[in-house]
Amino acid sequence: MIETFLLKEIAERALTEDLIYGDQTTEALFPRPTPAIGEVIAKEDLVVAGTDLAQIIFKIIDPGLSVVIERASGTQASKGDCILRIEGDGRAILKGERTALNFMQRLSGIATLTRRFVEGVQGTAAKIVDTRKTTPGFRILEKEAVRLGGGANHRFHLGDLILIKDNHIALVGGVTEAVKQARADLSHTLKIEVEAKTHAQVQAAVSAGVDIVMLDNMSLEKIQDAVGFIRKNAPSILIEVSGGITLDGLSDIAKSGVDLISVGALTHSAKAVDISMEIKGLPQA
Amino acid sequence: MIETFLLKEIAERALTEDLIYGDQTTEALFPRPTPAIGEVIAKEDLVVAGTDLAQIIFKIIDPGLSVVIERASGTQASKGDCILRIEGDGRAILKGERTALNFMQRLSGIATLTRRFVEGVQGTAAKIVDTRKTTPGFRILEKEAVRLGGGANHRFHLGDLILIKDNHIALVGGVTEAVKQARADLSHTLKIEVEAKTHAQVQAAVSAGVDIVMLDNMSLEKIQDAVGFIRKNAPSILIEVSGGITLDGLSDIAKSGVDLISVGALTHSAKAVDISMEIKGLPQA
Amino acid sequence: MIETFLLKEIAERALTEDLIYGDQTTEALFPRPTPAIGEVIAKEDLVVAGTDLAQIIFKIIDPGLSVVIERASGTQASKGDCILRIEGDGRAILKGERTALNFMQRLSGIATLTRRFVEGVQGTAAKIVDTRKTTPGFRILEKEAVRLGGGANHRFHLGDLILIKDNHIALVGGVTEAVKQARADLSHTLKIEVEAKTHAQVQAAVSAGVDIVMLDNMSLEKIQDAVGFIRKNAPSILIEVSGGITLDGLSDIAKSGVDLISVGALTHSAKAVDISMEIKGLPQA
Amino acid sequence: MIETFLLKEIAERALTEDLIYGDQTTEALFPRPTPAIGEVIAKEDLVVAGTDLAQIIFKIIDPGLSVVIERASGTQASKGDCILRIEGDGRAILKGERTALNFMQRLSGIATLTRRFVEGVQGTAAKIVDTRKTTPGFRILEKEAVRLGGGANHRFHLGDLILIKDNHIALVGGVTEAVKQARADLSHTLKIEVEAKTHAQVQAAVSAGVDIVMLDNMSLEKIQDAVGFIRKNAPSILIEVSGGITLDGLSDIAKSGVDLISVGALTHSAKAVDISMEIKGLPQA
Amino acid sequence: MIETFLLKEIAERALTEDLIYGDQTTEALFPRPTPAIGEVIAKEDLVVAGTDLAQIIFKIIDPGLSVVIERASGTQASKGDCILRIEGDGRAILKGERTALNFMQRLSGIATLTRRFVEGVQGTAAKIVDTRKTTPGFRILEKEAVRLGGGANHRFHLGDLILIKDNHIALVGGVTEAVKQARADLSHTLKIEVEAKTHAQVQAAVSAGVDIVMLDNMSLEKIQDAVGFIRKNAPSILIEVSGGITLDGLSDIAKSGVDLISVGALTHSAKAVDISMEIKGLPQA
Amino acid sequence: MIETFLLKEIAERALTEDLIYGDQTTEALFPRPTPAIGEVIAKEDLVVAGTDLAQIIFKIIDPGLSVVIERASGTQASKGDCILRIEGDGRAILKGERTALNFMQRLSGIATLTRRFVEGVQGTAAKIVDTRKTTPGFRILEKEAVRLGGGANHRFHLGDLILIKDNHIALVGGVTEAVKQARADLSHTLKIEVEAKTHAQVQAAVSAGVDIVMLDNMSLEKIQDAVGFIRKNAPSILIEVSGGITLDGLSDIAKSGVDLISVGALTHSAKAVDISMEIKGLPQA
Repeated sequence: MIETFLLKEIAERALTEDLIYGDQTTEALFPRPTPAIGEVIAKEDLVVAGTDLAQIIFKIIDPGLSVVIERASGTQASKGDCILRIEGDGRAILKGERTALNFMQRLSGIATLTRRFVEGVQGTAAKIVDTRKTTPGFRILEKEAVRLGGGANHRFHLGDLILIKDNHIALVGGVTEAVKQARADLSHTLKIEVEAKTHAQVQAAVSAGVDIVMLDNMSLEKIQDAVGFIRKNAPSILIEVSGGITLDGLSDIAKSGVDLISVGALTHSAKAVDISMEIKGLPQA
Repeated sequence: MIETFLLKEIAERALTEDLIYGDQTTEALFPRPTPAIGEVIAKEDLVVAGTDLAQIIFKIIDPGLSVVIERASGTQASKGDCILRIEGDGRAILKGERTALNFMQRLSGIATLTRRFVEGVQGTAAKIVDTRKTTPGFRILEKEAVRLGGGANHRFHLGDLILIKDNHIALVGGVTEAVKQARADLSHTLKIEVEAKTHAQVQAAVSAGVDIVMLDNMSLEKIQDAVGFIRKNAPSILIEVSGGITLDGLSDIAKSGVDLISVGALTHSAKAVDISMEIKGLPQA
Repeated sequence: MIETFLLKEIAERALTEDLIYGDQTTEALFPRPTPAIGEVIAKEDLVVAGTDLAQIIFKIIDPGLSVVIERASGTQASKGDCILRIEGDGRAILKGERTALNFMQRLSGIATLTRRFVEGVQGTAAKIVDTRKTTPGFRILEKEAVRLGGGANHRFHLGDLILIKDNHIALVGGVTEAVKQARADLSHTLKIEVEAKTHAQVQAAVSAGVDIVMLDNMSLEKIQDAVGFIRKNAPSILIEVSGGITLDGLSDIAKSGVDLISVGALTHSAKAVDISMEIKGLPQA
Repeated sequence: MIETFLLKEIAERALTEDLIYGDQTTEALFPRPTPAIGEVIAKEDLVVAGTDLAQIIFKIIDPGLSVVIERASGTQASKGDCILRIEGDGRAILKGERTALNFMQRLSGIATLTRRFVEGVQGTAAKIVDTRKTTPGFRILEKEAVRLGGGANHRFHLGDLILIKDNHIALVGGVTEAVKQARADLSHTLKIEVEAKTHAQVQAAVSAGVDIVMLDNMSLEKIQDAVGFIRKNAPSILIEVSGGITLDGLSDIAKSGVDLISVGALTHSAKAVDISMEIKGLPQA
Repeated sequence: MIETFLLKEIAERALTEDLIYGDQTTEALFPRPTPAIGEVIAKEDLVVAGTDLAQIIFKIIDPGLSVVIERASGTQASKGDCILRIEGDGRAILKGERTALNFMQRLSGIATLTRRFVEGVQGTAAKIVDTRKTTPGFRILEKEAVRLGGGANHRFHLGDLILIKDNHIALVGGVTEAVKQARADLSHTLKIEVEAKTHAQVQAAVSAGVDIVMLDNMSLEKIQDAVGFIRKNAPSILIEVSGGITLDGLSDIAKSGVDLISVGALTHSAKAVDISMEIKGLPQA
Repeated sequence: MIETFLLKEIAERALTEDLIYGDQTTEALFPRPTPAIGEVIAKEDLVVAGTDLAQIIFKIIDPGLSVVIERASGTQASKGDCILRIEGDGRAILKGERTALNFMQRLSGIATLTRRFVEGVQGTAAKIVDTRKTTPGFRILEKEAVRLGGGANHRFHLGDLILIKDNHIALVGGVTEAVKQARADLSHTLKIEVEAKTHAQVQAAVSAGVDIVMLDNMSLEKIQDAVGFIRKNAPSILIEVSGGITLDGLSDIAKSGVDLISVGALTHSAKAVDISMEIKGLPQA
């Protein structure tokens, strides 16, 4: 959950980008308050995200607007559904429209894509998790969208997990040495995860007693071997699979018995879903 | 072009997100400076973007790093090409890796997708332009990526063009009335564009003497009709086509003689291209 | 129009400058809430500006204040008129007094001076416009004050109009070359304006088909010649006059048939108008 | 003196206003670095201010520029003098031109006006001081310009002097009561000044033992009386005159023997002085 | 007094530090609003400070919370007293608990320690004052806590008093020269204080006619001598004692007749007082 | 490690507090650059912290200063040792003195106190760890000081560990229920810690399979019992002791076999250590 005061800050920065020099069109066309109703409509089936932020955006522009969330974040909306209904001065609705939609389309896109991956592992114990491949500055929003889609979060920043990756191993000289080095100066609050590309690295990680092993870019067969080896030798270790995961091979990987499947595409390549705003005039009060 | 002091601000905000609580892994593994070389490698064919920002990111973390741009923004990189070469303390390279790649992958993704649309209109007079459907707070970066891909920019914010859209028309009561109203209180520096969904609206816009007509979500046939009508009656008006444009129908639309084809997907749905970092140790100096 | 959330940000920065270390006088004198009424009074005839900002300033200090705008921004106030009436805790009124007056005096000064220029062109088609010669960081406020005074706005920043000035022409080698160069890589949303100091430059600009010609520092006679030439050869081009315009020669220039007269002095040399605050105690509630 | 890191912050905020969406003209005209020299020229006699800030502005845009201050802040420049000489990429000079000039014209305007007031009291012991009637957010810059013109500074904010003004007195019920109240809870670091409109108030202030008496809006005769009274009864009290001071009556007031003459117009109504930039191309290196 | 809009800014920065990546515990445990009451309890006798800030903190997280101040800032609370009572959604109480307590414990610690020093000078004319030895960025909060404990404030920043210290004197060559130099270019609003370590320096300061003399690190005997000398020769000069003051020797110093005793330890070494939060569930409404 | 760009931001905010209205004393006394050398001297034995930040502070004020760290952060300095040596313009040294010392005294105070606790557990396996009881906004600095003193860090914010405390348990109804609830929606990267006040809670935590048990405010005897119970039943669980730990009882607690002893006093009640600056003039170059 993102605290409201943080959402406000994000919303104000975004609105500044669009409105810093005014909305010349709206101001030229409507010199006076213009009663209207705006409906944010799903133009395709999607998982909703970003409604809280959209609500804050419209309220920042005009606290007098009534903004009703018809489909809460995390729920499914069908094509044609009204997600958000805004009533009040049409000028304020017009000014916030694009910024609100930009957030909702992108975040709902992430939630919707995540839902598809989550459905792809249904019936197994595997969880879909995200990565740090997020839009810079938007990580907390995008990771919340992943949760809304049914996924779970991997680490948020470089400080909340020891994750020893290929480049670390290359520089330090090997998995065993790296884990030993990490242990020497480690906060007790942090877990240790190691990325393994080969069976030898999996063995080293298991011997070193890490908390999580990430199987990176392995074939299905190698994944199955690794899962077998780890479950037998160190049943409490969590197993994550990562690297080029698509919806196609997803089910087989999940059935191999891994705990976590991390998918960079959830945040770096989700398409914006189609959401639009329809505004109608109302009689003057 | 984005001024360097603005890029620095963007880079520092992004780095703060990842590094505010330190890079626990890198700091635990490497207590001392660790000479290394990092290569940012294209893992697929792409149009490069974001190199200036990546360079600034690494320099912020460690001004002692040497950062050489091997493939400049705007150029084509083939799978396997080295785009950026960084030499110096490996710890600084590791800390900046993800943030730099996140920017480069997303912005190069936009540039690459734009290039494909630009190629799709080759041989015609049509230009590919972007929209305001950008990631909130990133508009100047994403619009630069569109230019690097060969596209042109539509307006940057709500203040640099009068663009009368369907929702404005709905509230004000018609195209003719809207343009009249806009003219009454208009800075002489601004052009007027009107969105038209029907032939009647095209006629009204032409009669009103607008600078640009946007044909919104029309069939190819209707586009051809509208182009014929406008060219005959008001040859100086620019014609823009918008709404659900894909690579498929692109060429036919371009051949219809329109000036501009605006594509929201350039920025809202470009996939991140695959770029990765390879780091190797160097002997201690 | 400047959005309320932007005005708040401006107001808070200004109040911080004055109140960061407290209002030692007011706090020493009044340990308890002190009911009072404050009236912001015009001490000379003026055009009002800055009331929205003043209202926000007092509300930031104490949301419990009642702040009534008696003379709206854009209207004329006569010497002695009450512009703003504030009722509530006198301590909050005292703390906001100087900051609110500093804004109102400066912005009303701009609106008042603009009104005089606008009156000077009455009966002609010429419009008075501002320039970018504004107080750094205050451009949106000062340009709004110009509009409140009846003027129109020239461009807001370096990105919303191509304006080729003498220094550009000197570096690029000539008007014709400059316009050609600008056209080659231009967003379709932008107009092109060229500054011309000689008849030759006017001719070149007309031949190049620019949207606006600015006649810079020309004598009345030369202006008349240029207007004649442009109206005959390119009736759709807008004609702007600029450079050392004073109230004296204004009417003659306006009668020459130009469209726009831009006046840097509106913002860079407007005197603050005389506005003061009178506070009276009220009986304790 | 304003610390460099604070000037940088001011400069970046100002540049952001102008350059946030790029300098479309300069970028379209000059795709490549364009060697040039720019000279900032005084177009009238003036006292220079703002050169440090201008230098920082150009360096922020392009650290490669050479920026030489030919006339230091605080010195006199004659019409035609070159104040600042900038050499390097002409594009950077063009981008910073307006922002640098806006600061220099306004601040030199204040310094120049202050110099005239200072000259008006020459031969007397009176000092010219400023007020808090400054552009919100610019107080430290404007007060430095006053010093550069030879004036001295009154308080910077509401926390560095107890200044009991008419509105305080009205609410608290009288000078004697106000000073007593202020004394009760006062930091020992702060002086106490009282604004007096009548002889009775002067007497009360003297009896109360304040540090400074401000004679507000008094006639010359009343000023002379007050000076006589105070010098006789409390020779260590500083005497300030305030309210509607112009260059006309200035000398007589100064000769009355007062210590300080505060002039709001120094900052709220100084005209921008005429300063311009001339740019010439240089041969490519 | 610190203005509310400044407290909000401080509170939001502090909350961001703790909540930027969410409160994972609270969010995992309580998916729904959870009615609760939280009591902030003094676990030792103390002088209360920071309640306004704590109230703002809880309101930022959830404006729906009721936050009642039971013991106002500046009053004494006994062990077991309830200082603040918060009612509403328990999740919001849990999220703000640590940040609110961190402020209250530190600021009440300063107020409590100050109260002890103030009691140590009771019956004398000496006032306890603070220094600039504060937590960077927190000076206004910590100086307010000193006032709440009954102390007075020394200067807030380097701009509101001329304070010539040992290092200044060493560089300039002597007290006499330093005061002369300071006088030459001094705002009339500022007092002059000189730090004296020897009797010779005291004499020089008195001769130079400063406003305040600070006796730095002198023995009680030397302080008594200096007081005698100053009272005889310049009765209007304020006398401050500074340097390693503890509660032990305090009373004797106060009785020597000095005006001010400044104590760095008030802010730099106050222990946090023990305050804790007790939360109980309430029946669902 | 705190990245340099973050330290700069902290340093600039702190300097702004002190220098926003200039250093009136230094500027009045020294109109010209004044060569000097400043030595930061330990006035008592201490563990050094804050040198990097101090170096940045002086460099921000004047990049021309030479700042040499004589005793690195983390090392021991004896009374009289020079920690930092600064050479250059004495004015810049004077301006930065207080801000640099304020940071160094507070952070070295934390490091020094931590070192004493660390020495108190020598010869045992127990580690000294900090808490979230830090100065708001300074957590990363204070936690680094703890590490410099030889301690380890507990969690940095509410997002990097599930820590179920007494107030959570009270609201949720019991340890077992709380852990179950937490597990249901938990990122795999996070460990779970439970605070236990009774043996029953310890048993529940062990049964629930948490990663860390915190024994809160237990007697030595109860601690020993709990350690025995946990080691026997769940040897991989980490045991933390917390609550009112002082140097007195420390050794016995450590010998009981616990893994971690967390001490709020490290950050909330460390006294500033005595460090001062001595400045001497140098002959003009």
